[in-house]
Amino acid sequence: MEESFAPYVRRVYYYETDKMSVVHHSNYIRWFEESRIDFMRHAGLDCAMLEGEGILMPVTGVEAKYRSSIFFDEDFSVRPHLVYFNGVRASFRYEIRAVKRDVLAVTGESWHCFIDEKTRAPVNLKRMSPWFYARALELVEGENKRR
Amino acid sequence: MEESFAPYVRRVYYYETDKMSVVHHSNYIRWFEESRIDFMRHAGLDCAMLEGEGILMPVTGVEAKYRSSIFFDEDFSVRPHLVYFNGVRASFRYEIRAVKRDVLAVTGESWHCFIDEKTRAPVNLKRMSPWFYARALELVEGENKRR
Amino acid sequence: MEESFAPYVRRVYYYETDKMSVVHHSNYIRWFEESRIDFMRHAGLDCAMLEGEGILMPVTGVEAKYRSSIFFDEDFSVRPHLVYFNGVRASFRYEIRAVKRDVLAVTGESWHCFIDEKTRAPVNLKRMSPWFYARALELVEGENKRR
Amino acid sequence: MEESFAPYVRRVYYYETDKMSVVHHSNYIRWFEESRIDFMRHAGLDCAMLEGEGILMPVTGVEAKYRSSIFFDEDFSVRPHLVYFNGVRASFRYEIRAVKRDVLAVTGESWHCFIDEKTRAPVNLKRMSPWFYARALELVEGENKRR
Repeated sequence: MEESFAPYVRRVYYYETDKMSVVHHSNYIRWFEESRIDFMRHAGLDCAMLEGEGILMPVTGVEAKYRSSIFFDEDFSVRPHLVYFNGVRASFRYEIRAVKRDVLAVTGESWHCFIDEKTRAPVNLKRMSPWFYARALELVEGENKRR
Repeated sequence: MEESFAPYVRRVYYYETDKMSVVHHSNYIRWFEESRIDFMRHAGLDCAMLEGEGILMPVTGVEAKYRSSIFFDEDFSVRPHLVYFNGVRASFRYEIRAVKRDVLAVTGESWHCFIDEKTRAPVNLKRMSPWFYARALELVEGENKRR
Repeated sequence: MEESFAPYVRRVYYYETDKMSVVHHSNYIRWFEESRIDFMRHAGLDCAMLEGEGILMPVTGVEAKYRSSIFFDEDFSVRPHLVYFNGVRASFRYEIRAVKRDVLAVTGESWHCFIDEKTRAPVNLKRMSPWFYARALELVEGENKRR
Repeated sequence: MEESFAPYVRRVYYYETDKMSVVHHSNYIRWFEESRIDFMRHAGLDCAMLEGEGILMPVTGVEAKYRSSIFFDEDFSVRPHLVYFNGVRASFRYEIRAVKRDVLAVTGESWHCFIDEKTRAPVNLKRMSPWFYARALELVEGENKRR
């Protein structure tokens, strides 16, 4: 079943710009995170709930291609997609667009694992968080059909 | 006894500037923290050691006056002074200068309390961390004589 | 005439927390800015329009009292009030609350001046930006009646 | 001729940590920048001088692999290497290590182009900044011999 989620949208803050008068490139990495957490909450994969179970989801890798700048006060949208999940690792792809100008600004990907908050050892969500595991599988399968 | 500490010095990072081409005002608040933690380590009040004892030192207030801008790639110095300490509360004053131009850029103050990391209840360092208490009293008295 | 504006509301981002597991104190200073620019846009004092006229509105001072922590994933609200304006200087007061817990977390104030983007010299908006001047006076008078 | 540069070293700031009690992953991207600008200055490719000639060097892509966490108050080192340069594009590789623990924490790469500050059009440094061009070629050749 295909599911569709509203993109994550907000306006650029002043403090996100740098002396080139555009958004500093490190902030797009933060926008990936904002949109990922927002998407996960709406999709039934609440990050705060997972942390409540003592499981963290650190970033193990990130990649971004900056195609076009975004400016102060502009609305931007981010569309995150869960493109890989096997209970032990997950990966998301992102597209950031300048809304009014309808320009693709940044694309990227992030990779994640799941660890026990106390021991910091990797965990398999199939055993440790079945509700998250089932829902994430469902989403990634829907996503793969769409592509 | 008067003690003297080297000021905290470093260069402005590109990502600390904003589209006005100067350091964003929120970053000076972060520089207060950088210089405070550096000063405390050199003065024998190591923050990481205090945290190792389960005691946090949160900021309860902060104030900054922006007198002059600092620019990308400039060296700046911060001189933090411990101006109040009673085992329960502490306060620091700061002076940020552009080193080469020898210009006073920002002055400010921060207020702190001490809390138990687990209960988040206020603690008195006289009982909970005697080494920190004794050393901080010594410093604040030296500071008050100087003024 | 009394005017009323919706508070600025959004959720805490993961990257805004620190190792105390609460929002880092410097970020509240950034939230003041976010809410101020949002308020100004809704109130007819668009910051981006002012910058389009070559006028910047730097922060000359800021003050914050941290009364209670805000946590990851919480909704917070900020109510900014224009409490002083004379064409040359302006001042805003802020109240940040944790929405669900209905707790007052941070109060603060910021001071501003207006400068020419090129010369960086102070300007009087009465002459340089009459639309902004008239509207800001109207707002500050409404605000003063309310208090 | 092989040249050797001291790595970029500094301590982790409190505000760079997040609620996982480690450095937030977006900050490593900022450390790449800090170390790149520091390296360029020491290597005779001063970024501020290039900007003085009206040429900006934006980031067109970035990639990071997070292998191990870095903690508050630790010293870290970054070794940037100029691995590609043709006058129009450049690329750097980075290795971030926890100094005392001697652990490789993050590796990454960044890609850059050169643009005119006013027109934002790409420029070729062979024509626009011969001193930078000659020195960068020299460095990238030295780097390629070493590998």
